[in-house]
Amino acid sequence: MLQYQEPLDLVFQALADPARRGMVERLCRGPASVSDLAEPLAMSLSAVVQHLQVLETSGLVRSVKIGRVRTCRMEPKALRGIEDWVARRRATWERRLDCLGEFLAAQSEKSSTRRKS
Amino acid sequence: MLQYQEPLDLVFQALADPARRGMVERLCRGPASVSDLAEPLAMSLSAVVQHLQVLETSGLVRSVKIGRVRTCRMEPKALRGIEDWVARRRATWERRLDCLGEFLAAQSEKSSTRRKS
Repeated sequence: MLQYQEPLDLVFQALADPARRGMVERLCRGPASVSDLAEPLAMSLSAVVQHLQVLETSGLVRSVKIGRVRTCRMEPKALRGIEDWVARRRATWERRLDCLGEFLAAQSEKSSTRRKS
Repeated sequence: MLQYQEPLDLVFQALADPARRGMVERLCRGPASVSDLAEPLAMSLSAVVQHLQVLETSGLVRSVKIGRVRTCRMEPKALRGIEDWVARRRATWERRLDCLGEFLAAQSEKSSTRRKS
């Protein structure tokens, strides 16, 4: 059964593998051929192509084949998606800590007023 | 075969599911019981517990059982891990664009000097 997956699912899934994260790291430094991407990895070229397909499906990478060389490039927009998601969670978390801080400050002020009166 | 997985693999994997991301969103607003987490999700309690185990293994969430109630809390340190990873990629990417900009500016200066002479 084909299951619909949200774009964020695919990006997080693509980055859950150290080889694919390595490929993303390499592509952030500039475009590269499939052989360039394969060079530091201890795996077959067909395994690299499979990882590349996962990255392309997630929207993190796109590639163009000219002649016999496939050149891959980063699509930083997809990375921004997860950056935004995490930033929103952090904002919620920090707002919660602020509220907790204000609550505790108010509580301690109340109890010191009570002690004085 | 048991395969060693890097902490980042587990965090990205944990967040590659919309139900688990929903649970993280909820826990960023404050601690919650398993039933609280299950409430908005259209799935069985045992499925929720399985998702919770994935979140706990990744280090994003921890839970404590007191009496019959298991209370879950966020561990924001694990989120910071992926935030840092993405920020480092963005820095590499932006440095590359700066270099490219400088290169193009130098090229256009060279060609305008050539035209003038």
